[in-house]
Amino acid sequence: MAKLYFKYGAMGAAKSAQALVTRYNYEERGMKVWCIKPAVDIRGSKDLISSRIGLEAECTPIEASDDIVEIYKAFKVKPGVVIADESQFFSPEQIDQLRELVNITDIAVLCFGLRTDFRTKLFTGSARLMEIADSIEEIKTMCACGKKATVNARLDEEGNIVTEGRQIELGGNDRYEPMCHRCYSERLITPSMDRGCQSYRR
Amino acid sequence: MAKLYFKYGAMGAAKSAQALVTRYNYEERGMKVWCIKPAVDIRGSKDLISSRIGLEAECTPIEASDDIVEIYKAFKVKPGVVIADESQFFSPEQIDQLRELVNITDIAVLCFGLRTDFRTKLFTGSARLMEIADSIEEIKTMCACGKKATVNARLDEEGNIVTEGRQIELGGNDRYEPMCHRCYSERLITPSMDRGCQSYRR
Amino acid sequence: MAKLYFKYGAMGAAKSAQALVTRYNYEERGMKVWCIKPAVDIRGSKDLISSRIGLEAECTPIEASDDIVEIYKAFKVKPGVVIADESQFFSPEQIDQLRELVNITDIAVLCFGLRTDFRTKLFTGSARLMEIADSIEEIKTMCACGKKATVNARLDEEGNIVTEGRQIELGGNDRYEPMCHRCYSERLITPSMDRGCQSYRR
Amino acid sequence: MAKLYFKYGAMGAAKSAQALVTRYNYEERGMKVWCIKPAVDIRGSKDLISSRIGLEAECTPIEASDDIVEIYKAFKVKPGVVIADESQFFSPEQIDQLRELVNITDIAVLCFGLRTDFRTKLFTGSARLMEIADSIEEIKTMCACGKKATVNARLDEEGNIVTEGRQIELGGNDRYEPMCHRCYSERLITPSMDRGCQSYRR
Repeated sequence: MAKLYFKYGAMGAAKSAQALVTRYNYEERGMKVWCIKPAVDIRGSKDLISSRIGLEAECTPIEASDDIVEIYKAFKVKPGVVIADESQFFSPEQIDQLRELVNITDIAVLCFGLRTDFRTKLFTGSARLMEIADSIEEIKTMCACGKKATVNARLDEEGNIVTEGRQIELGGNDRYEPMCHRCYSERLITPSMDRGCQSYRR
Repeated sequence: MAKLYFKYGAMGAAKSAQALVTRYNYEERGMKVWCIKPAVDIRGSKDLISSRIGLEAECTPIEASDDIVEIYKAFKVKPGVVIADESQFFSPEQIDQLRELVNITDIAVLCFGLRTDFRTKLFTGSARLMEIADSIEEIKTMCACGKKATVNARLDEEGNIVTEGRQIELGGNDRYEPMCHRCYSERLITPSMDRGCQSYRR
Repeated sequence: MAKLYFKYGAMGAAKSAQALVTRYNYEERGMKVWCIKPAVDIRGSKDLISSRIGLEAECTPIEASDDIVEIYKAFKVKPGVVIADESQFFSPEQIDQLRELVNITDIAVLCFGLRTDFRTKLFTGSARLMEIADSIEEIKTMCACGKKATVNARLDEEGNIVTEGRQIELGGNDRYEPMCHRCYSERLITPSMDRGCQSYRR
Repeated sequence: MAKLYFKYGAMGAAKSAQALVTRYNYEERGMKVWCIKPAVDIRGSKDLISSRIGLEAECTPIEASDDIVEIYKAFKVKPGVVIADESQFFSPEQIDQLRELVNITDIAVLCFGLRTDFRTKLFTGSARLMEIADSIEEIKTMCACGKKATVNARLDEEGNIVTEGRQIELGGNDRYEPMCHRCYSERLITPSMDRGCQSYRR
């Protein structure tokens, strides 16, 4: 009856804030919440989920080699819910472990994270969540044009969109911009790529 | 302002019926609807979207080598909306073409299709839709246990779940069963795979 | 665990078609479906749910004085799910009876219906559903301008919007038009009602 | 293109926290946010939206006699978005004014608030929002039984559910408990009200 949730959004959508508000809500109702995030998330402290809005909570950093079910089994007082931030960085096997937790122990697991990288490709964790989550829900934010942002564009120092490079770039937020796909593709397109579709614009 | 929609569901969720009801609704409001489906969908007629409930509509079969934007550009009277069935079988490039149609011509494209194959892996088309769709929405159906079905289990002749084989199996519906992930994993698990989690079940 | 659903939409949103597709889907999974609608729905046959797309199914017409729980109790083989069309016409007490069915028997009850009448006021049944449904979900259709329709405008013979009259007008569909609220209010507004806001339009 | 949103939830669902996270998100993207709430909300400061999680923001208290459009028109620098907390306490006319703001100025208005009072009846503001909002979305919280809470039960000093009294009771949060409808009705029911349905429980 409990579910595996994927609450995805673009950068800047206040996903961590949502995770922390959700945690607060569960704790207020008397439940023990276990917060986790992949240790690979290199921004800020490894054992804190923190939001720019000023909220934070302790969490267990999950190493790439960790088995989440085994860590859960070691709790003397079992948590009643799991909240995971930056879930896009989990391995597929770790998402399967979260799935296993839901199936076997009947506790809810809520995974917050990015949908895609700067090349519009699913991350390892988000791909597996898109495959096996019971509930897929978007946390929305806006493009500068006012429409919903769905793409995390990586920008170079001149503000040009970058489409090659490593999936995880050290250095953080300032080189990314959430955009709608239309703005993204319009800024990406060069005259040589134009297929003459503009003439079909209504 | 128009969007690329992915309306996904397990087998038996009446996705084609939903596609055909949506088509009817658009036509009733005076819009020209272009129905398409991948030619690889081998069940039934290539140029018909049909539902077990008794609805059907003509469609353009899209070959693996087709460029959907080019086909669209050849219409003298441009359709105002695109409805795609069995979208899981499109190539990533064809999903990008549908995205391009939305971005350039500002018409809505609604893609109906399966989320995952019998091994719980995204299809080529559904993976790309999960990456770049503006809206991801589930069409629900039930597991035999009453919970929501999310897995398309492939069964052999004895009713055992199969986890190896080709992604697209000739022969159709009768060898698949929509299940919730818990029933799927309980029927899949063998004593040797049991990790002793049952003792943590609340 | 079962829920009371309200699936609301404007006129012409294919709500009855959705109800009938849902019914088909449940029956295909082996469940006994009980279809009902208020006897006050005067369009077409009292004991049929029918959709313009060509689908139909028998239903029990519920009179204003009927107690739905009592009718349910009289079934020798109890239905496993209830699908109600035109639910806006039920009395608040009958919605409470549907709520009671969900609570006591743990079967799902899916209510399809209009949200509001031609004066943008909730109907008796939809008001009570908005109060006590477990799930409120919109079935969408379009305004002529392309945006989502939310208002059921009643038109007189010259096509002017009518805002006075009886809630249920004999004569049916041809005098109503689904609109977005902006088009509705722009067609409704007269110079004397203009509050000078246009100058604030961005 | 902008919309009027109603984000409703039971007490304790962290609605104000959600409102404040949403405000932060808009401001981070460079938009001027106008926060409002009905002056009748007697808990805490009249000119602050505050959440138990520790977030707060200044807001304009709206008196019952205020015209929200007129207040908006007096801004020299017009806000780009309106966030309203405790929206259930607005009058129907004030919800119409928010609707007018959306229609005329094309800015988004997000209304957070309770759905129903302790007798499961819509408040004045939530009733009008259920009628004319473009988007109706639930902010979820839990019943003590683990299911979703939808009812705001008012409890007397012995913990019994109260069903009579004034809609707005001075004294605040401690006398209310969010519940699912089943728990609510089971705690409410007395032997004399039992209709013998338990025998139909599956």
